[in-house]
Amino acid sequence: MRGIVHDAPNINGFANVQLAAGLARALGIDAVFVDRDTVMAAIGEGVAGAAKGVRDYVYVTISTGIGGGLVIGGRLLRGVTNIAGEIGHLPVALEGPRCGCGSYGCVESLAAGRFLAEAYGVDDAARVFAAAAAGEPKAVAIIARAEAALGNLAIILVNGLNPSLIVIGGSVAEHEPAHTIEPMRRAIATRAFRVAADAVRLVPPGLGRDVGMLGAVISVRERLAGRAEWFL
Amino acid sequence: MRGIVHDAPNINGFANVQLAAGLARALGIDAVFVDRDTVMAAIGEGVAGAAKGVRDYVYVTISTGIGGGLVIGGRLLRGVTNIAGEIGHLPVALEGPRCGCGSYGCVESLAAGRFLAEAYGVDDAARVFAAAAAGEPKAVAIIARAEAALGNLAIILVNGLNPSLIVIGGSVAEHEPAHTIEPMRRAIATRAFRVAADAVRLVPPGLGRDVGMLGAVISVRERLAGRAEWFL
Repeated sequence: MRGIVHDAPNINGFANVQLAAGLARALGIDAVFVDRDTVMAAIGEGVAGAAKGVRDYVYVTISTGIGGGLVIGGRLLRGVTNIAGEIGHLPVALEGPRCGCGSYGCVESLAAGRFLAEAYGVDDAARVFAAAAAGEPKAVAIIARAEAALGNLAIILVNGLNPSLIVIGGSVAEHEPAHTIEPMRRAIATRAFRVAADAVRLVPPGLGRDVGMLGAVISVRERLAGRAEWFL
Repeated sequence: MRGIVHDAPNINGFANVQLAAGLARALGIDAVFVDRDTVMAAIGEGVAGAAKGVRDYVYVTISTGIGGGLVIGGRLLRGVTNIAGEIGHLPVALEGPRCGCGSYGCVESLAAGRFLAEAYGVDDAARVFAAAAAGEPKAVAIIARAEAALGNLAIILVNGLNPSLIVIGGSVAEHEPAHTIEPMRRAIATRAFRVAADAVRLVPPGLGRDVGMLGAVISVRERLAGRAEWFL
């Protein structure tokens, strides 16, 4: 299982690729670790970012796609086959367009930048937000659906995992907080269990937009030091 | 926080009740533990039931309501304020009837026995299943929606937590496996990440219909022995 990319929903045909072995050969080095960028970001935030010292948190990225990492009791949740935390592919609707993963209703397929652009028939999510801001009805509906989907994701995280912190990164979240982090906060405040809602904060990443890259550096350093994925 | 019922969505007005203290007084005993029935069931299944020896599993009950317990690395996930695992209140739809918890779109409000009966205007979910089996269109639609909601829940658990086992108990699951566990299996097989889908099994509880009660006995025994909530 290790070092193999089983599936990459947003890269056509990139499946069951022996990436670690290929990179090790091409680069002429021994130790190549392959991991999800969002997991790297989650680790980076825990070791040196907004989640430093926090034992129960979730990292969410809202960008071209949506992904994340779950940290429980100071440990990254991997699951039994390293899929845990694929939060972009949590279904939050009973129907919707086909997702890159083959399913439908995934929060990614309703709220990620690539899918907002596709739904509106443009090549950049920024144009959908601009059209919605100008009151164009189709764009307004697409953004409203994205906000509703992100609200459901936020409640899933809060009622399901009851963390003390949710770190929300990614280019869409960075540029459009009023349509991402704010509707997530509102959904939690109005629809999640009170005791869980009161216990959680939603914040941007402490490591900024390079969180994935910095997280990868931190993660490799931690691995080589034998500290694996316990942060605390 | 301990011993207090903050909220009970299906019992009107039962909020912020000091249940442990009241029971201790009324029964004249010292040690009263208050916990969710579904958490007791999850612990019971882990110590002596279908999940014995399994480190990463989810217990789901589909009954009057829907609830559960999440076990990760052999430990029950509590979250920071003991709400984690409230899987009945994970939103799986962008709209739907008002749930007992005040939200909407919760899988409980779309698929639990009480809400199936309410949606059909009868007093027992069994009548909705019977009407659907006879082809009555409104009942068929309600059950189809419930199956879709349970399918989304199953995928949330598999893509989000990537467990090796999901134990599915509760009276509705017991009586109507073709409308509960089977659509959950189908959703996982067709819509979840392949590597996670292949790693998980869905089974009924090993402790049968008394799983909650047996789990409570087991849980108290474990607590008094100082073993808390580590099973393995």
